[in-house]
Amino acid sequence: MREQLLAAEQVRAIEWRDGALHLLDQRALPFEETWLSYSTAAAVAEAIRDMVVRGAPAIGISAAYAVVLAVRVRLAAGGDWRAALEEDFALLAASRPTAVNLFWALNRMRERLERVKEDDVALAVLEAEALGIHQSDRDANLTMAQLGVELIRKHQGNLQNLLTHCNAGALATGGFGTALGVIRAAYLEGLVERVYADETRPWLQGSRLTAWELAADGIPVTVNVDSAAAHLMKTRGITWVIVGADRIAANGDVANKIGTYQLAVNAMHHGVRFMVVAPSSTIDMSMEHGDDIPIEERAASELLELGGKRVVGEITALNPVFDVTPADLIDFLVTEKGVIDRPDTAKMAQLMCRKRLH
Amino acid sequence: MREQLLAAEQVRAIEWRDGALHLLDQRALPFEETWLSYSTAAAVAEAIRDMVVRGAPAIGISAAYAVVLAVRVRLAAGGDWRAALEEDFALLAASRPTAVNLFWALNRMRERLERVKEDDVALAVLEAEALGIHQSDRDANLTMAQLGVELIRKHQGNLQNLLTHCNAGALATGGFGTALGVIRAAYLEGLVERVYADETRPWLQGSRLTAWELAADGIPVTVNVDSAAAHLMKTRGITWVIVGADRIAANGDVANKIGTYQLAVNAMHHGVRFMVVAPSSTIDMSMEHGDDIPIEERAASELLELGGKRVVGEITALNPVFDVTPADLIDFLVTEKGVIDRPDTAKMAQLMCRKRLH
Repeated sequence: MREQLLAAEQVRAIEWRDGALHLLDQRALPFEETWLSYSTAAAVAEAIRDMVVRGAPAIGISAAYAVVLAVRVRLAAGGDWRAALEEDFALLAASRPTAVNLFWALNRMRERLERVKEDDVALAVLEAEALGIHQSDRDANLTMAQLGVELIRKHQGNLQNLLTHCNAGALATGGFGTALGVIRAAYLEGLVERVYADETRPWLQGSRLTAWELAADGIPVTVNVDSAAAHLMKTRGITWVIVGADRIAANGDVANKIGTYQLAVNAMHHGVRFMVVAPSSTIDMSMEHGDDIPIEERAASELLELGGKRVVGEITALNPVFDVTPADLIDFLVTEKGVIDRPDTAKMAQLMCRKRLH
Repeated sequence: MREQLLAAEQVRAIEWRDGALHLLDQRALPFEETWLSYSTAAAVAEAIRDMVVRGAPAIGISAAYAVVLAVRVRLAAGGDWRAALEEDFALLAASRPTAVNLFWALNRMRERLERVKEDDVALAVLEAEALGIHQSDRDANLTMAQLGVELIRKHQGNLQNLLTHCNAGALATGGFGTALGVIRAAYLEGLVERVYADETRPWLQGSRLTAWELAADGIPVTVNVDSAAAHLMKTRGITWVIVGADRIAANGDVANKIGTYQLAVNAMHHGVRFMVVAPSSTIDMSMEHGDDIPIEERAASELLELGGKRVVGEITALNPVFDVTPADLIDFLVTEKGVIDRPDTAKMAQLMCRKRLH
C-alpha cells in the first residue's frame, strides 16, 4: 500500500529547495500551475494569509520552513537574533487563527531552537527539524491512509460511493492527503466506485483542488454544490463522508471547513458513516471543547464577488470559514497514532499517550 | 397588514401591458434592472428555461400569459387554431420540469379555453383568466403572509432571527412572495431582528435576489454560504427556517431548491421550526410521494464557471437544482387555504377541499 501510494504520487504543493520555500499557488489552480518562492518569514506569513498555501498540515509545514528563513535572516543581521526572531514567530502566528498545526509547528521549531546553544549550527539544526516535520507529515498520511482503508473494508468489502468536503489532499498536506490519502488508498484497493466532491464555497477548494487532484489520479469524481450533499446521500448510495480537520479539541470536537458540521448532522440522519482523518498535530489538548476554538471569519468579498467581479449589491455578508462538529457526530477519528471510534475526552487522552504507529 | 404590505411594495417582476408580457430579467440582477418584452409563447418558454423568470408561482403566471400570446398568434393565422395551439402548450410544458405551477397554470388556461365556444371572444376571455391567475397569486401571497406571521407570533412574541433559502419573494411570485411575504409581514409587525439568506448555489438566488429584495425594503439581511446554515443555527439563535416550494406531493413531501432538504434535517437537529409557504397551485395531488416528483438537472457549467469564466477543469459535475424534503421534517405548511402542521396525506386532502380564505 505505501509503495503503491508513493508510486502513484502526482501532486506536491510544498518544496524546500536551494534554501528557499517553494509553494504551488493554490489560488490559480487548476488552470495555472504557478510556483512562488519565498525567502523571508514575512512573505510566507502573507502567503498563508492569502491562501497561496492552505490546509492545516500544509500551513504547519510552511510555517516551519518560514522559521528557518527567519533564522537565516536574523543570524545574518547579528545582534540579539534570538530576541529579534520573536517578531517572526508573532507574524507567522497571526497569519491564520483556526488551524492549530500552525501553532504546533511554530512551537516545535521554538523548542528545538531552545535546545541549540551554539549559533553556528542553529540554522542547520532548524532546517533539519523543518524537513523532519515535513517528512513526518508524509509518513502520517501513509499510515492514516492504511488505517482508513482498513476501516472501510471492515464495514463493506464492495465498491463505495464516498463524499468529501473541501480539500484534504496532497495540496493540503506534505504528502498524499488526510481524507484524500484514505480515498486514494481505497481506490488503489478497488473499493471506490465514485467520489462526490462538495464544491466548497466560497473558495471552491472542492471543485478547483479536490476534483483536480482526484482526476489527475484517474479516480472517478463528481462535483456537486454543497447543498446537494443530503440529496446525494438519499439518492446516490453514499456510504462514507470522509473529511480532514483544522483543529480537534481534547473532547474530540472537530473544527473543519464551514459545512462539515451540517454534513455530519446529515450523515447521522442518513446512517452514512462519518470519518475524520487528521494527524495528531491537529489535536489541541489545551482546548477542552470545540466551542473554544477560534473560528476565522474572512472577507465578505469572498461571497459577494465571482471571478473578481462583484455580483451582489451592498449587502452584509457573514463568512465564517470553519465550524465545529461535536464529537458525538463523528464515527471514526483516524490519526497516525491509531483510530478512535466515537471520540470522547478519555479516548482522546489515551490516543495522545500512544507513540505514532509508523 | 394587507394595506401595509401593499403600501410597502417595491419590486415587481411580471407585467402584462399593451398586449405583451414584460419580465424583469433576473439573470442580470442586482446590478442591471432590464425589462424584456415577449409576444410569442416560444419566446416565453425560452425565458422560463433560461431563467429570465424563475420561482414556481412566477413561472405559472408567465406561462398563463404566454397562452394568451399563443392564442392571439394562432387566431391570426386562422385555420384549426385550437389544434395548432397544442404545439404552444407542449413547448411551454417542456420549459422546466419541477415546478408544478407551470402545469397547473397551463391546465387552467386549457380548461378555460375549452369552455369558450365562440372564437371572437376567446382572446379576451383568456386574457382575463391570465390576469385572474396573476391577481389571485397576489391575493394568496397576502393571505399566506398573514397566516405565517400569526404562526410566528403564536410561538414567540419577541424579535426573531430567520433563515431563508433561494428566493421565494416578489421576484418568484406575482406579488410579495411566499416565504418572503411572511418575512416582510413579520418585519412590519416588529418581529424580525435579522434575516439570514443562504446564497443558494449555483445560481445565487439568495445573494443576488433575496438580499436585494429585503435590503430594498430596509429589512436587516445577512448573506451566508449555504454550508454555514447549521453553524448559524447553533451560534446565531435562529428560530425559524422559512422557504417556498416548487411542488408539494399529496403526502406533504416538498420539492424545493436544492439544499432545502439538508436545511430541514438541520432544523430538526437544532430544534428550529421549519415553515414552507406556498399557494395551493404548488400542490400536486397526482403525486403520491415526493420521490415521484421529477427533479431537474441543469448544465454542469452552472457549477464550473464563475461569472462566465471557467474556474474548474474538465470535471464531471452533477447539478440537481431541487430536492425533496419529506413531510415529517416540515413543522408547518402555509397555503392561502390555511395552515397544516406536520403535513400528511389526510391533512393534505382535507386542505385541498377547503375554499381559499381570501
